[in-house]
Amino acid sequence: MDKTLFEELKKIYNGDILYKTEDLYPYAYDTSPNPKEIMTPEFVVFPTDAQQVSKTVILANKHNIALIARGAGTCHCGGCRVKQRSIVIHFSKMDKILDIKKEDLIAHVQPNAVIAEINSQAEKLGLFFPPDPSNLAVSTIGGAAALSSGGPRTFKYGSTKDYVINLEVVLSDGSIIKTGSDISKNVTGYNLTSLFVGSEGTLGIITGLTLRLIPKPEARKVTLAYFDDILEATRAVNAIINSGFMPATLDLLDKNTINTIEKFSPCNLLCDMEAALLIELDGFIENLNYECKRVYEILAKSGAKEIIQAKNEEENEKIWRTRRSAFAAVTKLRPNVITEDVVVPRSKIVELTKGIQKICSQHNVIVCIMGHAGDGNIHPNFALDLSDENEKQNFEIVKDKLFALALELGGSLSGEHGIGSEKKKYLEKALNGGAIEYMKKIKKLFDPNNIINPNKMF
Amino acid sequence: MDKTLFEELKKIYNGDILYKTEDLYPYAYDTSPNPKEIMTPEFVVFPTDAQQVSKTVILANKHNIALIARGAGTCHCGGCRVKQRSIVIHFSKMDKILDIKKEDLIAHVQPNAVIAEINSQAEKLGLFFPPDPSNLAVSTIGGAAALSSGGPRTFKYGSTKDYVINLEVVLSDGSIIKTGSDISKNVTGYNLTSLFVGSEGTLGIITGLTLRLIPKPEARKVTLAYFDDILEATRAVNAIINSGFMPATLDLLDKNTINTIEKFSPCNLLCDMEAALLIELDGFIENLNYECKRVYEILAKSGAKEIIQAKNEEENEKIWRTRRSAFAAVTKLRPNVITEDVVVPRSKIVELTKGIQKICSQHNVIVCIMGHAGDGNIHPNFALDLSDENEKQNFEIVKDKLFALALELGGSLSGEHGIGSEKKKYLEKALNGGAIEYMKKIKKLFDPNNIINPNKMF
Repeated sequence: MDKTLFEELKKIYNGDILYKTEDLYPYAYDTSPNPKEIMTPEFVVFPTDAQQVSKTVILANKHNIALIARGAGTCHCGGCRVKQRSIVIHFSKMDKILDIKKEDLIAHVQPNAVIAEINSQAEKLGLFFPPDPSNLAVSTIGGAAALSSGGPRTFKYGSTKDYVINLEVVLSDGSIIKTGSDISKNVTGYNLTSLFVGSEGTLGIITGLTLRLIPKPEARKVTLAYFDDILEATRAVNAIINSGFMPATLDLLDKNTINTIEKFSPCNLLCDMEAALLIELDGFIENLNYECKRVYEILAKSGAKEIIQAKNEEENEKIWRTRRSAFAAVTKLRPNVITEDVVVPRSKIVELTKGIQKICSQHNVIVCIMGHAGDGNIHPNFALDLSDENEKQNFEIVKDKLFALALELGGSLSGEHGIGSEKKKYLEKALNGGAIEYMKKIKKLFDPNNIINPNKMF
Repeated sequence: MDKTLFEELKKIYNGDILYKTEDLYPYAYDTSPNPKEIMTPEFVVFPTDAQQVSKTVILANKHNIALIARGAGTCHCGGCRVKQRSIVIHFSKMDKILDIKKEDLIAHVQPNAVIAEINSQAEKLGLFFPPDPSNLAVSTIGGAAALSSGGPRTFKYGSTKDYVINLEVVLSDGSIIKTGSDISKNVTGYNLTSLFVGSEGTLGIITGLTLRLIPKPEARKVTLAYFDDILEATRAVNAIINSGFMPATLDLLDKNTINTIEKFSPCNLLCDMEAALLIELDGFIENLNYECKRVYEILAKSGAKEIIQAKNEEENEKIWRTRRSAFAAVTKLRPNVITEDVVVPRSKIVELTKGIQKICSQHNVIVCIMGHAGDGNIHPNFALDLSDENEKQNFEIVKDKLFALALELGGSLSGEHGIGSEKKKYLEKALNGGAIEYMKKIKKLFDPNNIINPNKMF
C-alpha cells in the first residue's frame, strides 16, 4: 500500500476509505466470468460530491494509479474489473434523485440512483423512464449511462443514450464540466453527452445526469406466441412491424430456453415448441384492445401454434415472470452461466440463432438463446463449468466463432452490454481501423495519463 | 487563383471544376442574412465518390486552403458560408438513395439525397423517416446530419441524430472511415456517429449515411385550436402531455403570425386570438378517433376558444398549408426576414415568448413568433430592412437580448438550426468553459490544420 497516497486520500475523505483486503474484495468483481486471478483495488472511496472526485482524480494522476468508477457492478463485460493498481470510486453516497421537473419532462439524478427507483418516482408523476436493463432493480444510472444499457423496451423506446441529455463529468485533469444543457432538443456545440454515454467510464467520471422522461403509457398488454420454427417466429416479428406496429417488446425465446424455464419453475410452457415470442404493446387502454386483436390475427396468420393473450395486469406480470426467470433457470443447468450479447440486422436473426445452435452442438456446449428480436439483439446464455479447464478453453473457441458469425452477418459485438475487458480482442474485427485509431486518440485527449478506467474497450 | 492547385484539382475531377467568378457566386450563400461583403470560393468541385473527396482533402492540406462541404445551402446560421480561401465541395453528383432494406429498417444514402425523396421512397415500402426540417423538399440529408436538423415532428420522433446510425466520413488526413456499424442498437466503441452528427461539417466530410427507418403511421389527424392568451395555449400543451399523449406535432403560432398569414393568404384564421396550436396526432385510424376526441376535450377544458379538427387528409393538409405559409407571409412584411431559433425548458415558453415580444416592442422590430411548443423550441421571425444600417444595428441588440433571455431561462442557443457563423459569439455564454475547451481539442484532433469548414461554431 502506498502510504503517502493513503494519507492524502484520508484527508479528502475524512478517513472514510477501504484499504483492508477483506474490505476490498467485493469491489474486485462485476457480473462477468471470474478471471483466474482476482485482483483487488488498493483503495475504495465513497465521494459525496464532484469536488471530492476531482481531488481524487488529481491525486491519482500524481501517483499514477488507475481510477475505476462503479455502481452496482452488474456489468457483463468486465467493464469495472480491476486490472492494475487502482482506486475504486464507489458512488453509494451519491444515489439521490435530486428532482423531477414534470412540466419540463426531465430529472436530475446522481450516478448511483437505481434505475427502478427513478422509474418508480417518475411514475408517481405520470412519467416514464423507458430504459430497462434486466438488473434494473439494482443497476445504477451511472453504469447504465457508461454502457448505454438497453433492455427489452429498446425497439420502441431506444436505449439509455436516448434519455441522457446532459452530464456532469469530472475529467482526468480534475476539471468538472457539463457536457451540454438541460434541454432535449439542442444543437449547440459538439454532442459531448453522446460521446460520454457508452464510453464505459474511460473518458471521465460521471457525477451527475439530466434525464429525459416521457409520459407514462396508460397500460400494457402482453402476448406469448409459440412457433414450430424460429424462422416462423421471426417472420411474425416482421409481419407485426410491417403492419405498422412498434411494440415495446418483441422478445424471442428458443426451445432450450423454454424447456429450461419449465424444468426449474413449471408454468405450463409448451416444451415441444421451437420458439416463443413475448410481445408487449403499450398505450391507451382503449387503443390496446384494437391493437391486440390485430396482433393476434397477424400471429395466427404467421403460423403461431398457440397464442396466449394476457387479460389483465396480473396475467401480464405472469408472462413477464416466465421471461425473467430464464437466466435464473439456466444457472441451474451447470455451475456457471455466461450471458453473451450480439446484434445483427433483423433479417439475419434466423441465420444467427441457427448458427449459434450449430456451433454449440459442435463444441458440446449447452446454450439457451433469447433476445430482443425487434432489434436483432440476441443473448445466448451458455451453461458451463468454468472450473473445467478443457471446457473453458472450448468455450473460448465458441465465443470466437459466435462473434465471427455476428460480424459476418453484418452485425456488431454488443447491443447493450458493451466491450469492457471481455470483448477487447474482437474490437478490431468489428470496427474500421481508422475509427478505432481516432477512438484511441479521443481517449488520449481526455485521459493523457491513461488513469481513467484504463485498458478497457481497446 | 492558385494555378498549381487548379491543375491538380483538374486531374482529380477530369477538368469538371467551377472557377469563374460568375459560376462561383451561387456557392457563396446559405439562407442566413447576407454579410456586407460576399466572398466566393476559389473553386467548386463535384465529387462522385469518397475517393475523390479524400484526394481533395489531401490537396487542401498541402495548399492550406479551406474545404466547405455543402448540399442545398438551406442552413440558417451561415454554416456553409465562405469566410476565407476555400474550395466548396458540392455533393450534387452524390445524391442517390442507394437502397432501403425493409426488413432491417435501414436505408443507405449519399449525402445529397433530398429528405423528401428519402421519405417518399421509404413510404412506398410502408416505412417512415421522421425528421422534417421545413425545407425538406430541397434540403439534403448530409446537411441535415451536419446540423442534426429537427422539425415539427421532433417532440414525438426525435431529430436527425436519432435516425443516423452509421456514417462514411472523409477525415482531414484523407482517410475514409466508417463511424460505426449499420446497426441501430449498438454499443461497440465510442459513439463517433453522434460526434459527427451535429458537428456542422467541421470534423470531417460525410460521404455516406446509414439511416434508421420506422414503420409508417397509418394516418394522421390535425387539430387547430385558438386561445385568448399564450399562457392558456401552453397550459393546453402541458395538459395534453400530462394525459399521456405524444403528438407528432405541438406547434404554437402567436397573434402576429396568425394575422400575417391571414393578411397575405386569407384562410379564415381568427385574427383576434392571441395564440393558436397546431396539433398532429398520428397512428392507426382506429386509435386516432379516440385520441382526437380526448384531445378535443382537453383543449376545451384548457380554455380553447375555437377548435377545428380536420375530418380528412385534405383538411389536414389545409391546416398544414396555413402553418407552412407563415414564413412566406412574413417575408411580405419587410424586405428581409431572419428566422431565429432558441430553445428553453417547456415551462419557460410563456416567459420567453412574452420576453421576445417586449424586446421587439422596445426596439421597434416586427416579430412573428412560432415554434415547436412540445420541445420548447421557439422561432421568432424578424421582419426587417437590413439595408437600413440603423435597423441592422438595432437588430443586433435584439439578438443579443434574445439569446441572453433564452440562456437566463435555462435554455440554449439552438434547437435545430445550429451555431455556424451567426451564433459563434454567444457560444461561450451557453456552454461550460471546460466543455468548449474540449470541443476545440476534438476539432484540433480531427482537423489539425483547420481546413475542414474552419471558423464555424467556435
